[in-house]
Amino acid sequence: MLASDQLKFFCEALAKAASDEILPRFRNLVRVDNKDENAFDPVTEADRAAEAAMRRLIAERFPEDGIDGEEHGLERGDAEAVWILDPIDGTRGFIVGLPTWGVLIGRMEGGRPRIGMMHQPFVGETFFGDCETAVLTRAGIETPLRTRPCPDLADAALLSTGPDFFSDEERPAFEAVSREAKLTRFGTDCYGYCVLAAGQADLVVEAGLKIQDIAPLIPIVEGAGGVVTDWSGGPAGSGGQVVASGDPRLHEQVLKKLSG
Amino acid sequence: MLASDQLKFFCEALAKAASDEILPRFRNLVRVDNKDENAFDPVTEADRAAEAAMRRLIAERFPEDGIDGEEHGLERGDAEAVWILDPIDGTRGFIVGLPTWGVLIGRMEGGRPRIGMMHQPFVGETFFGDCETAVLTRAGIETPLRTRPCPDLADAALLSTGPDFFSDEERPAFEAVSREAKLTRFGTDCYGYCVLAAGQADLVVEAGLKIQDIAPLIPIVEGAGGVVTDWSGGPAGSGGQVVASGDPRLHEQVLKKLSG
Repeated sequence: MLASDQLKFFCEALAKAASDEILPRFRNLVRVDNKDENAFDPVTEADRAAEAAMRRLIAERFPEDGIDGEEHGLERGDAEAVWILDPIDGTRGFIVGLPTWGVLIGRMEGGRPRIGMMHQPFVGETFFGDCETAVLTRAGIETPLRTRPCPDLADAALLSTGPDFFSDEERPAFEAVSREAKLTRFGTDCYGYCVLAAGQADLVVEAGLKIQDIAPLIPIVEGAGGVVTDWSGGPAGSGGQVVASGDPRLHEQVLKKLSG
Repeated sequence: MLASDQLKFFCEALAKAASDEILPRFRNLVRVDNKDENAFDPVTEADRAAEAAMRRLIAERFPEDGIDGEEHGLERGDAEAVWILDPIDGTRGFIVGLPTWGVLIGRMEGGRPRIGMMHQPFVGETFFGDCETAVLTRAGIETPLRTRPCPDLADAALLSTGPDFFSDEERPAFEAVSREAKLTRFGTDCYGYCVLAAGQADLVVEAGLKIQDIAPLIPIVEGAGGVVTDWSGGPAGSGGQVVASGDPRLHEQVLKKLSG
């Protein structure tokens, strides 16, 4: 098994390759296609080109590994190690010019998220975790990430991408949590999990996530001391309804609300 | 009357003084007070120290000007020129560690917003406008800002800080606009108006704003070719219910929806 720092080094190369495709297209006019004619699901050239660039590097270095990317689909899904790629998580933020999106790169081993990276090239910061530890790198300086204690929902800062990501069945449970939280902040995408890992916020509650939206973030949150599960307390690595807490005591409290 | 570029130069000095107080406290533990025991209204030491630093510079350079700041109140409100200061617009974003807040600096002349700046020191970008023109500065490079055409709400990207900033009376009007827009993105604060000025989004609809939240942004949006009014089409410079559009045709259409 490869050491985390070797994988981190390779993730940085992937993130650089992705950013080289994405940054020149940020805040420029990009062609926006709709995958589904009924819903607004932006897909940009930047997304596609960045994922293709990462796939090329993985195929060279780890030809036996699988790859599951948002734009170009699944290859070798039965491999022991599978890379999970979301070149632009937070596409809505990206297309309106906000610096809140990120390049997500994860590696599953034996079906579990083992390492993950969130890279934000416009802001210039990179979050990385391997389930045991997590670090933030900015301007060449590495800082360890640690979640903060927050045992009680009444003191919690709650983050979520947006209220319309919940179905009508899911929304009441989210609102029950939001009403009791100290504050709720929307529009967070991948950044929500990263600032939680950094001990700046306490809780992320979301639904309708794809594997690419969450698997790369789990090793960062867990590496910083947090917990990520689905709303029933089971594994969250494949997406769907996700709850992440910085404090395991808060997690227990919120799971009761979400399931009840 | 001072030329815009002299004022721009002075605004940059103010923004630098504010950032020197704010950045060391971003993502660190800050003392969070509540102004109002019933509502969560975070005030940080960074806010207070940054405003005090800006006030000192203004008092030295423009001793006759008024100052209206969110933390330290109004001085010489009857002066011909009044500086409007919001050291950290987007305090919620700030306290959860997101890079979506900004230092807002505006100057009213004769009761109307004449120049305005939004500075984001962590991301490293500055938006400036004087009602006639607007520019973005990043890494020493100045780019003119221009809103994009979007005559129809069905094609519009709508931004707003959060659904809970609307009163129960206001929310249905916002939701009527949001339902017809192409996409809605929350969590934007001052950035919403800036990316609209940059031609990345089309519409911002908000309510409950203070003068400091909006007056510094109007010269940026107007300078880029956009329109900012209250929900009835009147002046928005003193806050309250605000709508900003990149395209004046869209503005007319949305005003009809907001006024019922």
